[in-house]
Amino acid sequence: MVPPTPSAADRQEVIAIIGVGLIGGSIGAAVKRRHLARTVIGIGRNEARLQGAREAGLIDVASTLLDGIRDADLVIVCTPVDRIAADVLAAAAHLRPGSVITDAGSVKAAICRDIESARLPEGVRFVGSHPLAGSEKAGWEYADADVFQGRVCVVTPEPASENCERVLQFWESLGMQTVVMSPDAHDRAVAITSHLPHVVAAGLASMLLEELIPLAATGFRDTTRIAAGDADLWTSILISNAGPVKDGLSRLMQRLGQIHDALAADDAEAIRRFLASAKANRDVLEGVAKE
Amino acid sequence: MVPPTPSAADRQEVIAIIGVGLIGGSIGAAVKRRHLARTVIGIGRNEARLQGAREAGLIDVASTLLDGIRDADLVIVCTPVDRIAADVLAAAAHLRPGSVITDAGSVKAAICRDIESARLPEGVRFVGSHPLAGSEKAGWEYADADVFQGRVCVVTPEPASENCERVLQFWESLGMQTVVMSPDAHDRAVAITSHLPHVVAAGLASMLLEELIPLAATGFRDTTRIAAGDADLWTSILISNAGPVKDGLSRLMQRLGQIHDALAADDAEAIRRFLASAKANRDVLEGVAKE
Repeated sequence: MVPPTPSAADRQEVIAIIGVGLIGGSIGAAVKRRHLARTVIGIGRNEARLQGAREAGLIDVASTLLDGIRDADLVIVCTPVDRIAADVLAAAAHLRPGSVITDAGSVKAAICRDIESARLPEGVRFVGSHPLAGSEKAGWEYADADVFQGRVCVVTPEPASENCERVLQFWESLGMQTVVMSPDAHDRAVAITSHLPHVVAAGLASMLLEELIPLAATGFRDTTRIAAGDADLWTSILISNAGPVKDGLSRLMQRLGQIHDALAADDAEAIRRFLASAKANRDVLEGVAKE
Repeated sequence: MVPPTPSAADRQEVIAIIGVGLIGGSIGAAVKRRHLARTVIGIGRNEARLQGAREAGLIDVASTLLDGIRDADLVIVCTPVDRIAADVLAAAAHLRPGSVITDAGSVKAAICRDIESARLPEGVRFVGSHPLAGSEKAGWEYADADVFQGRVCVVTPEPASENCERVLQFWESLGMQTVVMSPDAHDRAVAITSHLPHVVAAGLASMLLEELIPLAATGFRDTTRIAAGDADLWTSILISNAGPVKDGLSRLMQRLGQIHDALAADDAEAIRRFLASAKANRDVLEGVAKE
């Protein structure tokens, strides 16, 4: 008997998820909800938690051994950023030629560099990804099949000319819009849009003395929400993207210093210009036309 | 005929709102929804907009002349912070002995100082207030009768021993929790919980180059939401509270500088400690127990 050709279209693919936490679990839930795979294999280190994810319907098969992925056509590595490169290389050794590996890490340059320099087995390919979805929560208990719908996924093939059609197709099948960028350009961009806001939110949250809590209204809550993110995960992210985050911090501190000096000089016009320009930028995000 | 004694309890009070924008309009809506006054008088400078607020049911009577408040028992001044003191003094000249004026300004020390030094007519009292409610929107079109429910209102009597029962009772009748503080303590607190987040949100928003927009996900959006606030209103607020905001900015820049240096030194442990401490603070806000 000839087995049917694996393809997402006829739902015959085997997809493996390494690291079944918030993002890995959400991917499993979305793939299963949309019937995008014949089987979803979940790989993790904690047997009990992995069985829980299986019982919750996020994966079909649970395994603590990488050997469990040998039939996978597509592998998505969803471990913390400081473990992704090693997990990709370990997974690759178990895969058949023709299979593809991607990841869901928030930082791309260091990961792609480490994987490229180590070389993958013949016929096994890696294309980096960063789905911009998730929350400050951790653990598959917060998995959400809808979290990818309408969101952006950055895909970072290296070299840029590499065919990444299969990976683009996968994220698009979850309802995401895909953007192709180089790993370095990705890291410089998210330093500003994601990592810098995290540092700033944490900085503000760290100034919340107990007696100030009654006065912390929605503005403070919104501005600091992401500071509730997992400290270990975010330490890895910031360290992995240290250069661009440092640059962003320097630029932000310079701006805050200008505002400090404008307040000291009672220069209302400088403050008004700064706030009006920032508001124009923020309004664009909400789809309000820029003046 | 002897007129009935005015009191909130039997709904016989006349309440005047000076400045019928987002907050003034919301107060009118809440007072009318809860039947807390016999009449709600709205005072504003723009006749057409004021008539619109009356037709929308936020006020009963519209007037562009301060003389319209002569029957008011309680006046709430909801104009921008740089106009509140002058508007309180102008209003006071039209009021009967026994009437009370409060405001809804986000800054208290400068306003209370200006009013105290100018002296009010015999029998007319001012007690400062800051209801912590509202949004980045402007205009009575966004008025919301429910916006005060469960929120905190700071009341700043000066001297601290002054009887502010009537003003506390008013905000509590809108469903608010009241906190009594000195004007200076209030200003130092909101510099950290409100004004500093605004400056930081604007600083982040100002770094959003057009090509970064696709990568601005929920973290960036939440952290910068308040930067959409009105630039003129916020300029007045920051200038009126320049000292405490400058102090807060200095402390925040020092913290960000430490993170910058920890990244430069690849000091993951320092970053982890910073993020874990910030997360613990933020978790308290959500009612999660501190470890």
